Amino acid sequence: MRLAELSERSGVSTATIKYYLREGLLQPGRRVSATQAEYDGAHLRRLRLVRALIQLGKVPVATAREVIAAAEDESLDHHLRLGAATWALPHGPEPGEGDPEADAAGRTVAELLEHIGWQFGQEAGELSPAYRKLVTAVAALRRLDYPCDVAHLLPYARLAARLAVTDMDLVEEQPTEAGQIEAAVALTVLYEPVLLSLRRLAHAEESARRFTDGGTGGGEV
Amino acid sequence: MRLAELSERSGVSTATIKYYLREGLLQPGRRVSATQAEYDGAHLRRLRLVRALIQLGKVPVATAREVIAAAEDESLDHHLRLGAATWALPHGPEPGEGDPEADAAGRTVAELLEHIGWQFGQEAGELSPAYRKLVTAVAALRRLDYPCDVAHLLPYARLAARLAVTDMDLVEEQPTEAGQIEAAVALTVLYEPVLLSLRRLAHAEESARRFTDGGTGGGEV
Repeated sequence: MRLAELSERSGVSTATIKYYLREGLLQPGRRVSATQAEYDGAHLRRLRLVRALIQLGKVPVATAREVIAAAEDESLDHHLRLGAATWALPHGPEPGEGDPEADAAGRTVAELLEHIGWQFGQEAGELSPAYRKLVTAVAALRRLDYPCDVAHLLPYARLAARLAVTDMDLVEEQPTEAGQIEAAVALTVLYEPVLLSLRRLAHAEESARRFTDGGTGGGEV
Repeated sequence: MRLAELSERSGVSTATIKYYLREGLLQPGRRVSATQAEYDGAHLRRLRLVRALIQLGKVPVATAREVIAAAEDESLDHHLRLGAATWALPHGPEPGEGDPEADAAGRTVAELLEHIGWQFGQEAGELSPAYRKLVTAVAALRRLDYPCDVAHLLPYARLAARLAVTDMDLVEEQPTEAGQIEAAVALTVLYEPVLLSLRRLAHAEESARRFTDGGTGGGEV
């Protein structure tokens, strides 16, 4: 297909596609004349991934390039390629240096991972942005005196483990390795708002059930 | 306690505390002289909540003021006060107007809520920011041709329902109503990064288990 059709089918303007081509986020098309190139399904799919990363994942252009490079690095094994691609996604604030709450939070997180038996999580340890984000979040809860010891965090960790099984089943539905890596990146980014908004809707439901007469758990109003 | 001690105990600079006082985010202290005021535990707790909303929740100052006002509105019942406070929290992008994917996504979300039997979610319908955020996220998945029909979303909705029970148990641990409302706001904001980072750590664990020899599911390396 030509540039105009690629634009129409992806919903990305031709100016933005040209920008992505210049920035190396989109592989060049097959030249068919001095001024025209031919694009295919691989370009369309990449374009949608780039758009998902940049517009939904709020990933900066330079990081999107790293994510794509990691996803395509044939020298890494499948697990590492999935990991490298998703590690590059934004994770939020880092723990403060020498913050006593961060130190205590770090011990809580280490204890939690040991308790639930996540071997990879422990190995990756402080190298992993997700690990550091968790320490930051637990430190914030500690500072506010909200409950965040291992006993409180454990149900969340168990639910996260179930979620990961559901997520990885979706990833494995993709027939090709490249498709799986793309799916891992896209599902990490795109299922985060799904999960958070479902949690908030479930809060409303659970709160209605507990605190109003009209809730499912109560009688008729 | 005096301003200096409030600053030290909350970790918020005196300049920022004065700004929160001017903006009405923090209730004034009890005047003890022309230049000094006395603050207590209620100020400390409010300050930590304001800081959590603004620094962790990325809530704008005007919205933080609305969240606090809703949480303190005695005319609302407990369920509505919890809801009003958490609805004011940021939810991410809204669905596009007249977007065909958003329309299809809206039908999927309505079907999902009916299927799982969330009565409050259905009533609140399009009024709820969480509902609209879910539609936006499902529309994005549709556009990328990722699986997001009711069958795929249902396991996430079921996990969200379990999460909500865990969350509301934590809220109900707080002895006072004001404390419960504060906890609902703080846990909505503060447990989101906990949940997302645990999900990413669980991904790493599940990926290692499936795709490497050293994973828990495989043999010894």
